[in-house]
Order: sequence, then C-alpha cells, then structure tokens
Amino acid sequence: MSISVKAYAVLEEGGALQPFEYELDEIGPEQVDIKVEYCGVCHSDMSMVKNEWGMSTYPLVPGHEAVGTVVAAGEHVKGVKVGDKVGLGWFSGSCMHCRPCMTGNHNMCVSAESTIVERHGGFADHVRCHWAWAIPLPDGFDLAKAGPLFCGGITVFNPIVTGGVKPLDRVGVIGIGGLGHLVLQFLAKWGCEVTAFTSSPSKADLAREMGATHVVNSRDEEAMQDIAGSLDFILNTTNVSLNWPLYLNALSAFGTFHTVGAVLEPIPVPAFSLIGGHRSVSGSPLGSPALTRDMVSFCNRHDIFPITEEFALSDVNDAFEHLEAGKARFRIVLKV
Amino acid sequence: MSISVKAYAVLEEGGALQPFEYELDEIGPEQVDIKVEYCGVCHSDMSMVKNEWGMSTYPLVPGHEAVGTVVAAGEHVKGVKVGDKVGLGWFSGSCMHCRPCMTGNHNMCVSAESTIVERHGGFADHVRCHWAWAIPLPDGFDLAKAGPLFCGGITVFNPIVTGGVKPLDRVGVIGIGGLGHLVLQFLAKWGCEVTAFTSSPSKADLAREMGATHVVNSRDEEAMQDIAGSLDFILNTTNVSLNWPLYLNALSAFGTFHTVGAVLEPIPVPAFSLIGGHRSVSGSPLGSPALTRDMVSFCNRHDIFPITEEFALSDVNDAFEHLEAGKARFRIVLKV
Repeated sequence: MSISVKAYAVLEEGGALQPFEYELDEIGPEQVDIKVEYCGVCHSDMSMVKNEWGMSTYPLVPGHEAVGTVVAAGEHVKGVKVGDKVGLGWFSGSCMHCRPCMTGNHNMCVSAESTIVERHGGFADHVRCHWAWAIPLPDGFDLAKAGPLFCGGITVFNPIVTGGVKPLDRVGVIGIGGLGHLVLQFLAKWGCEVTAFTSSPSKADLAREMGATHVVNSRDEEAMQDIAGSLDFILNTTNVSLNWPLYLNALSAFGTFHTVGAVLEPIPVPAFSLIGGHRSVSGSPLGSPALTRDMVSFCNRHDIFPITEEFALSDVNDAFEHLEAGKARFRIVLKV
Repeated sequence: MSISVKAYAVLEEGGALQPFEYELDEIGPEQVDIKVEYCGVCHSDMSMVKNEWGMSTYPLVPGHEAVGTVVAAGEHVKGVKVGDKVGLGWFSGSCMHCRPCMTGNHNMCVSAESTIVERHGGFADHVRCHWAWAIPLPDGFDLAKAGPLFCGGITVFNPIVTGGVKPLDRVGVIGIGGLGHLVLQFLAKWGCEVTAFTSSPSKADLAREMGATHVVNSRDEEAMQDIAGSLDFILNTTNVSLNWPLYLNALSAFGTFHTVGAVLEPIPVPAFSLIGGHRSVSGSPLGSPALTRDMVSFCNRHDIFPITEEFALSDVNDAFEHLEAGKARFRIVLKV
C-alpha cells in the first residue's frame, strides 16, 4: 500500500516552496511512516534549498524536525509501534551494522541517511524513516514545541554528554539563538555555572531567564579578559568568525572549546595555548538515537522546550523569509 | 649547613658553558638535595641558554633531567628520604595547596617552580628540589639512561594516560626523535597498534624496533591518504609546521590530534573536520608527580629506556654542539 503525500517542495535551486505531491511506495521492513503534526524550520533547510552544501536534489521537500504519530510500521520494526507519538530529526536511517552503529553511534554511521538528502522530509503530511530514528515521546509532551529538539536540541545536548560536562563545571555558551537558548536551559538543569556570551546586550535578560548565571558582552574585551582561565567548557553555537584568542584565553586548565557551529574560516589554534593549559578544541555532529531519547526524557523531566513561533505549513514561504531576516525568536515550527 | 655546588653555567645569553660554583643555603623544610650522577640534555636547556623564551636569568645552570641520590632532606620532607635514588625533571617545586595541586595536578600549579628558571639546574654535582618532584627510582633502575625520562619521557607519557589512550587504539606518532622513540616504546607496551610518521625513511627500521607496527613516510601524500580515517589518536612530538589537513584527515571518528610540540604557527583547524567526525585537537605539558612515578614503574616493568649517548659533564659544550647539529641519537646524557 502506497501513500500519496501532500508536501511543500522547491523544484529548483533557491526556488520558492510550493505544494507538491509524491508517492511513498511500499514501506520497508524496518521503516515507519509518520503522520506529521508539526515540523520545525532549521537553517539547514534553507541551506539545502539553496544547495549551499552541493548535495541537494530537486524537487526537494525540506523539514527535519518533524513530530507526529506513527501510522504504519514495517514487519521488522522494533522499539516503536503504530500509534506512538515520535520525533524525527536530521537522520532518517542508519545501516545498523557498521562499527559506529554497533557501538551505539548510529549518528556516525558510514552510510547514514539524512531526512532531506536524496529523499523527502517533514514539510508534508507524512514522512518516512528507519525505526531507530523515530524517537518516542512521553505522554503529554508538547508536540507543538517538540520539533526543534530533534535537530537544534540534540546538536547541543550531544556535546554536554559526550564532552563529559559535569554539574560542577563552569560552562560558556556563545550565541543566544535557536541552539543557544536551548543549551542554556540544558546546562542550567545540568547544575552548571553558565556564562552566556552575546554581542546583543538586548538578549542578556533572556539569557538569564533561560538559565545563564552570568552574561558577558563578547565585544567588551575588558570583560573577556576578566574571565581569563575561568571556563571548563565553551560551546560555540554560531558559525561566524570569533575573536579566537580571547575565547581560548577564557578556558581553564583542562578546558575545552567545542564548536557545533560550522565556521568556514579554519580556527587558528596556537599550540602554546593548548599545551600549557592542557586544553583542547573539538566539535561534534548531532547525537545518537539513544542519546536523543535521553534528551527527550531530560526535557520532559525539567520542562525544557524551545521558544517557538508557529506558522501554518501553507505559510512556509513567510516562515523562511522570517528566518532569513534573522527575526526568528527562537525556532519556527510549521503546523501541518 | 650550606653546600658549595660545582656546576656548569652560561654567564650571558647564548654564551658557552663554563665551570661555575655557587652556594646552596640552608635547606628548606620541604626540600631535598640530590647528589647528581647523570643529567640529560634537552632542547629546552638550549632554548634557556639562548633566552628564546625570554625568561632566562644569568648565570644560568641548565639541566632538568637529573638523576642521583638524596643526600639531604628538610624536616618536613615526605615520600623520599636520604639515600634514595631519584629523578628530577622540568619542575622542581609546587605550592602543594592551589586547586591544581590539590587535585593531583602539581604540574599545573599556578606558582610552579621550574628547575632552571631563576634557580640552578642539574649540570652540577648537586641540585635541590621540593620532595614531591624527587621521583624515587626502583632498585637496579639504569641511572645512566634514566634522566631523559623526567622531561622527554613524561611529556609523552602524560597524554597517553590523560588522553585516555587504550590498548585497542590505533595511534600515530609524528617525529622519531628524542620524544618519539620513547613514546613508540610506551605505546607498544600499552598494547596499541602504532603508526610512526617520519620524513626520514632511514628511521623506519628504528621505528619498528622501538615498537611501531607501521611506518608511513609523511611526505608521501598517497600513503597519507591511504590511512584516512584510521587513527584514534595522533601524537605530535615535533615543533615544525605540518601538513595539518592530511593529519586531521587521518583521524578516525572521535579521533584526537594531540601536540606536545610547541609549533609556533597557529594550527589551522577547520570546524568541519571536527564536527563531522566528532574530533578534537589538544595539547599537554609534562605530567604530574604521581604520573611520573607511574611512568617509572611502567618503564621498570617493561624495560623501557631512552637510547642515549653519554658525554662527561666537562664536555658539555661538545654535547650541546652535537645536539644543535641534530646529531643526537636520541638523547644525550652527561655523566657528572
């Protein structure tokens, strides 16, 4: 039985989104189909629409922060069942048998399938994925806000866990945007002393509200010098060039500067600043399915959700314009 | 009771070493005096003689890989006693109460004392240090070869332990010199699969003898491409600019590029290469006293020693010339 999917797609590089129908063929034995209720809008959707990473194919249905109900499941599906509420993020499939998969790192699968690469995503009434990437949601979880957790959220939750951040750590967060306002909430509930860096002083109050203990204006060199040697972990959520020496200087002994923002300029790292302080510079992609489940559980327990703005799926072009203008506060969700 | 020390010193920046006598005053309550039998010669001695780091004072007695016998101990000395054979490295004292000291990281002490900075080192018949940095040697340990372990050795042993290198890891070592030939031995006995990188094909046999499983000519771009994604940990022992992209490309998922060589050029690290592979770039200084004791025990158990060339202390200028000409195979030791 195939499903006729009502979606929004761009038909060519950089085009506008328009109504688009396509058929989902017979479901695979390990796949599930999700009836989408909400789907977040991420910067990566825009990058894919514009083919900024050279891996887009058209027609392209964006959307990789989908939330909805499992309506069909292949015969070998495990861990989720028809009727479950689930979230789906950037990854829609893993081979399940390569070394990364077999060590629990399905997010590093050598043949990982991405939700909107060479297949169609969540700006639609249905979306398909491998069961491992359909993350079950607890009863009562706020579906209207949950979407952005599955890309933005897990991107910043992953380094907290895999980077070994501890409740006693002093952690810095660069950028108070879609990712930043989530990681501030995570870290506050993680027990950390959190310093938010922002070049928009207007965001200081919001950063505190989200859980920041301190707010530092990253353009104030004196303020940056005052925190020299004080941070165990700095998480960069931006993809712009930064005053790298000032941030590296803010790291404590054994401190780590970690980026999830794909800055284009290579980061210039002086060996001296690493050696003397036993420091490191690192990065990470989105997290594994197991960790995404942990994140959902943590969010549920601590009532952590993104701040969202809702648009109807049919207004997706307005939503994109809003995002592109830098006006999103802080994540946009489409209601299907 | 003071000791009149017979040493070799340079009297001015870049000068030659010459016989020099000085007095060691009354010993401090936590200090020991060591009668030096052997002292290694390290590149850092030469850097200090030439004031390359801007922290030299003259007269300057180099030498920070000293081995000998404790001949005097202050009233509050712990852990070592008169008559013990000990080794002394780059650090000669720590405050013992700052946070790094209290967490076992005396090597990161905020007021650490260095053996040859503003005090006199081991090119002498006596040298003084805090008891914590006088590392006891087991009976029968080869004193004539032990010296270089306390600077060169612990510099490369430290990242193996603190970097969490495991026996199943595939580890790369850049540079088969004073440090490199030691870390190859450490890693072989650690159980690792070890790849030695060298631009001197003539060193390939030696690298294998020291424990390398594979040898790769770092100037052979094809060979470097062949190992893409295969190494869990790469340890750089050199301080020259490298083909960074090739080495970062050789890292596996979750891999770490770690430098103990103080490369002057900032290392250009593309965020992309960190994020996708969940990788890191890091550095470290010499290890703690506890770890130095562990290293000695590991060396003793596995018969790991540097390959040394011996000079008499009175021939120290010849030794320096030999080192500066790049002829040392692989560490020079002065016999006092």
